[in-house]
This record gives sequence, structure tokens and C-alpha cells, in this order.
Amino acid sequence: MKGRMMVSQLPDHAAFALQRFRELTGKIKHYEEILAVVFWDMRTGAPRKGIGLRSEAYGDLAAESFRLSVSDEMGELLDKLSQHDVLPLLSRVDRRQVEEVRKDYERNRKLPPDLYREYMVLVSQSEAAWEEAKEKSDFPGFLPYLEKIIDYNRRFIEIWGVKETPYDTLLDLYEPDMHVKDLDRLFGELKSRLVPLLEAVQRDGERPDTSFLKGSFDVAAQKAFSLYILKELGYDFEAGRLDESVHPFMTGLNPGDVRITTRYLEDDVLSALFGTIHECGHALYEQNLGEELYGTLLCTGTSLGIHESQSRLWENLVGRSRPFWQRYFPELKKHFPGKFDHVTAEDFYRAVNVAEPSLIRIEADELTYNLHIMIRYEIEKMLFNEGLAARDLPEVWNAKYTEVLGVTPKNDAEGVLQDVHWSGGSFGYFPSYSLGNMYGAQMMAKAREEMPDLDEHIAAGRFASLKEWLTERVYKYGKSLRPAEIILNVTGEPLDSSYLCDYLERKFRDVYRLG
Amino acid sequence: MKGRMMVSQLPDHAAFALQRFRELTGKIKHYEEILAVVFWDMRTGAPRKGIGLRSEAYGDLAAESFRLSVSDEMGELLDKLSQHDVLPLLSRVDRRQVEEVRKDYERNRKLPPDLYREYMVLVSQSEAAWEEAKEKSDFPGFLPYLEKIIDYNRRFIEIWGVKETPYDTLLDLYEPDMHVKDLDRLFGELKSRLVPLLEAVQRDGERPDTSFLKGSFDVAAQKAFSLYILKELGYDFEAGRLDESVHPFMTGLNPGDVRITTRYLEDDVLSALFGTIHECGHALYEQNLGEELYGTLLCTGTSLGIHESQSRLWENLVGRSRPFWQRYFPELKKHFPGKFDHVTAEDFYRAVNVAEPSLIRIEADELTYNLHIMIRYEIEKMLFNEGLAARDLPEVWNAKYTEVLGVTPKNDAEGVLQDVHWSGGSFGYFPSYSLGNMYGAQMMAKAREEMPDLDEHIAAGRFASLKEWLTERVYKYGKSLRPAEIILNVTGEPLDSSYLCDYLERKFRDVYRLG
Repeated sequence: MKGRMMVSQLPDHAAFALQRFRELTGKIKHYEEILAVVFWDMRTGAPRKGIGLRSEAYGDLAAESFRLSVSDEMGELLDKLSQHDVLPLLSRVDRRQVEEVRKDYERNRKLPPDLYREYMVLVSQSEAAWEEAKEKSDFPGFLPYLEKIIDYNRRFIEIWGVKETPYDTLLDLYEPDMHVKDLDRLFGELKSRLVPLLEAVQRDGERPDTSFLKGSFDVAAQKAFSLYILKELGYDFEAGRLDESVHPFMTGLNPGDVRITTRYLEDDVLSALFGTIHECGHALYEQNLGEELYGTLLCTGTSLGIHESQSRLWENLVGRSRPFWQRYFPELKKHFPGKFDHVTAEDFYRAVNVAEPSLIRIEADELTYNLHIMIRYEIEKMLFNEGLAARDLPEVWNAKYTEVLGVTPKNDAEGVLQDVHWSGGSFGYFPSYSLGNMYGAQMMAKAREEMPDLDEHIAAGRFASLKEWLTERVYKYGKSLRPAEIILNVTGEPLDSSYLCDYLERKFRDVYRLG
Repeated sequence: MKGRMMVSQLPDHAAFALQRFRELTGKIKHYEEILAVVFWDMRTGAPRKGIGLRSEAYGDLAAESFRLSVSDEMGELLDKLSQHDVLPLLSRVDRRQVEEVRKDYERNRKLPPDLYREYMVLVSQSEAAWEEAKEKSDFPGFLPYLEKIIDYNRRFIEIWGVKETPYDTLLDLYEPDMHVKDLDRLFGELKSRLVPLLEAVQRDGERPDTSFLKGSFDVAAQKAFSLYILKELGYDFEAGRLDESVHPFMTGLNPGDVRITTRYLEDDVLSALFGTIHECGHALYEQNLGEELYGTLLCTGTSLGIHESQSRLWENLVGRSRPFWQRYFPELKKHFPGKFDHVTAEDFYRAVNVAEPSLIRIEADELTYNLHIMIRYEIEKMLFNEGLAARDLPEVWNAKYTEVLGVTPKNDAEGVLQDVHWSGGSFGYFPSYSLGNMYGAQMMAKAREEMPDLDEHIAAGRFASLKEWLTERVYKYGKSLRPAEIILNVTGEPLDSSYLCDYLERKFRDVYRLG
């Protein structure tokens, strides 16, 4: 009961409910933290033979955490605290936590437990089936799983209730308050400006030389350079650590323990480096959450989109910028003696900004990336709003790639099977990547307005000003502000795609010397 | 309900109780496993700033695990399964689990929760106070904590009930079925043979040359050699890993994930090496627990004493043996080029077996170690059975060291303050170290009897025969046999100190060339 506002003004029954609500949500938060430690461990070095029993242990604790979140007690506490004579008396943080927990509570209580359990089993089998199918480029082998997963999600939509459109119900899982009508407009704007830009760049631009990126790059030196860059960016190693895993990730266990992983490829000096900066962006968000949120369920990023805005802002708008490489290219040369002897910082800056139509999303550049996402968004909408059948996905996929990017997959492994998301049932997730790009560009435009010498700071390796600016406007609020509130709070405007388009036009016309 | 014996013969109400009992104990086991992952992480590399919140999360889950173990439901299940017409029908494993869980249940239910909570707070403060007091050699600074901890333990003894003597009640926490009357006899036998042996060795023996152990030893080479030896001994790296921590430990998360840690000292080539072999002995036990125990609370070593018998058997009876160094000294030389050029395997074997009276237990050799333990045993007995006051501990301590080992501490840091155990309330723990030495020597005598060519196996680097022998007789049973059953099972006799005394006499007369 101590250390938070306004409790004393509450009537006794509400004060007791609030205390118990804080205890219960605190326990759920603690269990989530511990589950994240176990997850991190499984991905970074847990011995193979222990995984089976560990997964059972993980499942038991995850079930207990879920049980608490949908318990009758939780329902009663939410009712008491949502009373019209109680809710307005709560502190901003308590009030938001009640709202957030209620939303999950209602969604989860609606799902019949057996249905949910069946689905969890299906998803875990499906992820394995997808891996095998991708390897063999065998879409028919994966189709039965995909059909079932889509069916389950259609049932979930019915159970949870259709919002404006069925797909809106899924979007809400990942980016609250974002709707099909908004995304249609935003992606339309992106398409109308980025497709012509890509064409102009390809047709008239001067392609940067990338030959010096080929070769073999010592993994120990890559690691040393990654660690160096992390320190430069302000990642706090007393509140985190860098490890290796097959798929890089960030996990915010608590704000004092925010870990990132990367993967070093000997024949690719950029992969680990930009991967590390990307995860660092996620980590800066989690390391700088406000103390008033510690121990609450609001102590995390507010949405996937806003989280992704930070990873992409640091990776692309900072890490692929000219001033960044003015400062760090000499350091890179020191780490890889003899590798870049005849290369200038400007050459390197241009080389890390090549933009080309391609088939694989995760290898896509900053310009074309959003077009990959748009294709997935359009397809997901067709699945849930227009009854597209799973068996028709390869055909639709290939047609869209041909139309939008002018490239056609030779097989389904480099087409519709490339992403893990659908095998895990994550429909509605993809748009958050592009939302992240748009949020990030809009925030960065505002930052430049308020800090006109930002490029000079970056060129001098001084990132504290940007980090503090973002902390004050984004990071410290965690989930206590909704995504729409965050972008309004930072920039004074709702989300606007033109900042991203303006930035990409300026940057790629410059990189490709289109004058 | 599947996969275990005899369930079908149970009346329905008992079958349901058994199923629920297995679920509940399985959940407790899972929580213990997860807590151990978090503990391992905190000791091996969790970032400093996250520890505060992590400890709270740890505390929440530990409390939940404790709550389950003393819940009314657990009490009811234990009652049902302990009925005279049910218990005999249970499988050996189920029956033993009921007995073990009941014992903890009864002990824990007797403690008033508030008293226990106060004690936990005291202990955590006391450990910090001890660290500071040890650093400053300030016994009076630690005394108030120690007095309180002793008082609490005296109250616990009253609450739990005095067994033969008050100290027996504490012994039972660490080594079930071991009593003061047994330990008095065993330590008496050790004293009567080991004190004269030590005197003879010191007076008439030829002290091994240890000059070549001084110097600086590359830490990377130490690590490589530790990893090499672990593989040789049969430690399964697919079911474990080696990390570093300030205080080395083994943690058996589950039999497929048994981790060990060590600490490398640049000026001491033996410390990490023998530390690693010691923890490897603990780990071999946990990696080879029987599958029928997986997921039960019996899936761990049966007692501290039996666990310690395995760490010490592998560290001392194998790792400090002549055949071991005949095989591995050439490998050691390869790992440390130029360090041991004029040293023979025999020189090295003798050097790692120097026996000398000393003040510090953790630096003591195989021969004097038991005398350090005996002193602590006698003092603990005085505290709980004879009313010794905490303030008199330094005087008693110093007198005993002078009498038994012929050395007198210059200050309390190298005397009564040297061990962490009492600051954590672990009274009754120390004897298990010597019990481990005695169990181990007795088991090894039997192993030699049944495998007369064991030394040749060791000299050939073939440890599988010994490991399998111990697995069949000790490891696979875990906690499903009591310590007294284990030693009887392995050797056909109850614990007998003469095996250890015979072994030490033979070995040290040989090392010191007493003919």
C-alpha cells in the first residue's frame, strides 16, 4: 500500500481490493519474469537432454500464471476497482493496470479452456511441421496444419466478437486501437510513394559498390565490435548481457536485467552488427522503463509497434545513417585490419543502404521492407475478411510479389513458407513491423526538430541526448500509455505515414545520387 | 496414472488421491527446478541491477512452492495414502515419496509462519553481517546475530521435538537416521587413528616437493584442462555445462541438465582442477538418477552425506590417486608447456597429497580434513546439548584447534569466523562432510573387491566401469533409498569408519615413504 498515490482517499473496501489486486498482478509479473529467465536459458545454452523435463516445468508455471489471471478472485477485484466511484480515484498507473488486466481477463475467460489447450498442442506441432515443410519447400505438407490454425483463429474471432471487421479482432491482439481502415490508408500511402521511389532508384540510381562486404570476417572481432557499439549506444551492461542464439532476440526480464542475443556469421559482417543494434533499440526501451511501473504488468513496452519503432529507429535511422558511419567506420577498420583499406566512410554508408526488390523479408532493406509487410497484411485480410482458402495462398503470394516487387518466388520456401509467424498462429502481427517504421520516422523527425544538432551528436558518438529524449517521451511510460497516446505525446500528431516516406525519399535519392 | 506399478490394485478413493498426490508433488518438483534455474543464473552471470527485483520474484515462487507443500490438501492426501490398507499397496517409489513428503509436511506445519519469516529475515541479514565480520576479523560484530540464530534453532528443536538429544533433531535435517551416539563413536574412531597418523607423517615422513606448484598458470589452459578431465570422467555435456562462479557448486536442475561451476585462480593450478572433479562427482550422481524417479521429489541425492561421498570419492579416491596421475600428468604437461619439465608423474602425485595441520578447513588435505570437521561437530554439540554460549565460541574453537591439530588461530577470521554455515543457520550440516569421506572410502573398498583391476582402468582413463558400478548401486536410487539403506545395499555392511582410516593410513604412509 505504500509508495503509490491516492490510496488513502479510497474507501476501505476499495483500498483492500487495490492492495490485493497489486499483490496478485505483482505475482503474475514475477511469474512472467521467471518464465522469461527459463525461456532465455533454453535459447542460449541449456543442455539438450534437459529440455523435455524443463518444458514440463515451464508449462506448469505458465499454467499457474494464466490461472491467476483468469481466476474468480481476479474477476471480483476487477469489478470492485472498476466501479464508477472507485476507478477515477485510482492513480494513473493503477487505473491503466485495471484496464489492461480487465481486457486480458475478459478475452481469456471467453475461451473454453479445452479449446485453448487443443490449440496450444496444434501450434506446437505446427511449428515443427512448418520447419520441415520450409526445408523441403513442401507447402502441401504444411497445409493441413495451416488450415486448422486458420480455422481456430476464425473461431476465436467469433468467440471474442467481431470488431469493425473480423481481422480487426486479431489486430487488436498486437496493436491496440489500430484498425483495418487505418492500415488500409497507411499502407496505401506507403505503396503510392515507395513503389515509385523504388522504381526510380532502380532505373536511374547509381548502385553503391558492395563488393568489399564479401569475404570472411573474424567472429571474435565481430563480437568485440558488437560489444563496443552497444556500449557506445548507451546499452547498460550492468543491467543486461549479450549472448548468442540461433534467432536473435531481446528479453526484458526486469528493467535491471534486459538481455539481448545475436548470431555471428563469418561471411557476413553486417548481420550480427545490425542485429545487435536492432535488439539494443528494444533493450533501451526496457532498460529505461519508469520506476513507478516496476513490479506491475505495465512494466513493458506498450505495443509491438511501438517496441519495433525503437529497434528500427536505432538500427536504421541511427545505425544506417551517414553521421554514424563517419564516427564508427574508422573503428570498424581497426577491428578488421586489412579488410577495408581502400574503402571510405561514405562508401560504407552507401553500401549498407542498398535497396533492391527481393524475395525474403528478413533480408530486405529499409525501403522495400514495408512492401513485404504490405503483401502479408493484404493476404491476412483476405484470409479473415474475404474467406481466402489456405490452399490458395501460394498463388496469391506469388502474384502479389510479382505485382508489387516485380520478383517471383521459384518455390514456396522462398515464398509463402518463409516466415514462422503463421505456423505459430500469429495473424495480425506483421503490420506492427511497418507501424514501427512509421512511428520511428515520425518520432525521429520530431527529435530533429527539437535537437537540430542531433546529427552532430551522432557523428561525435554522443547518443545520450537522443536516449534521454526518448526516455522522457516514450520509454518511461511503458504500457501506462496506449500506442496512440504515445505517438501523440511525442509528436503532437497522430500517426502519419508521410514522415517515413519523406525520410526514405530523402535518404535513398541521396544514397543513389538522384540529385 | 500411467507407467507406474500397482495403481490398478488400489481402491478408487486411494487411486484418485495418488493421482492428485503425484500432480501436486510433480508441481512442487517443477517449481524447485525453475527456482534452481534462477539461482544458477544469479550466481553465474545475471546483471547486478536486476538482482533486487529477481529476488522478489524468486521469493514469490519459493513461497508458492512452500505453500503447496504444507497445504491442507497435501495433508489430506498424505492421510489418505498413509492408511494401513493403502500404503502397502503403493509402489516402492510412491511409498517413499509419501514418507518423505510427510516428514517435511509435519516439520513445516509445526513452525508458526511468523516465526519462520522472522528467522528468514534474520538469516539473510546475518549472512551479510558475517561477511563483513570475517573481513574485519570482528567476532563481537557478528555475535548478536549468531546468538539470535542459535536461539531460534533452540526454539525450533523444542517445536519439532527433541530426539535422543537436542542436537539429534538438527542432524536429522541433513543426514536422516544419523545420531549423536553414532557420530561420537565414528569421530572417536577417526581421532584415535588419524591423529597418530598425522603425527607420524609429520615427524618421520618425507615431505613431497611442492615447489613446482607455485607460479602462474594460464587461465584458458586451466579451463581447457578442466573440460578435458570432465569429458574423461564421463560427465555428460549434453546433460550439463561448466560455468564460472565465485563459490563453485553443482546444481541438478533435472537429470538431463546438471550444471557445475568452478573458479580459476591464476596462481593455483590445483584449485579449479580438483574443484571441478569434486563438482563432477556430485554431477555424476544427479545425471544418473533412475528414470522412475523423474518428476518426483525423490529425484535427487538421498542425503548430504551420500552426495558428499560421491564428490569426495571422485575428487580424492580417484582424482588424487597414483593411477590417475600416471594417465593424466602427461596431458597436464601438454596443457602447460614448460611448467613441469623436470617433474615426474610420481612427483606430481605426491605433491597433490601433502598432509599438514592447518587452520582453514576448505584448504585442508584429505587426512586432516576430518579433524577440522570433528572440531565443528564437537562445538555444535556443546552449543545445543550442553548450553555453550555463543560468546565463548572463539575460546573453545582456539583451544580445540591447538589440542587436535596443534595450530592456534592468530585471529577469529582464520578461526571461528571462517565458515559461512552458522551465519545461515546450518547447524548439523558439518558432519556430512566426514560422513561423505567415510561412505566413499567404504564404497570404494567394495568396488575394488568386485573390480580388482580398477586401478588399471583408472590408469587407462576408463572410468565407465566405476561410474556404472556406482549408478547401479547408488545413483539410480536417488532418494528412494535412505542413506543407511544405500551403504548397506552397496557394501553389505553399515557405515564403518575403518575403511577410511585404512585407506588414509595406506595412502599417506606411502606418499610420505614411511614403509
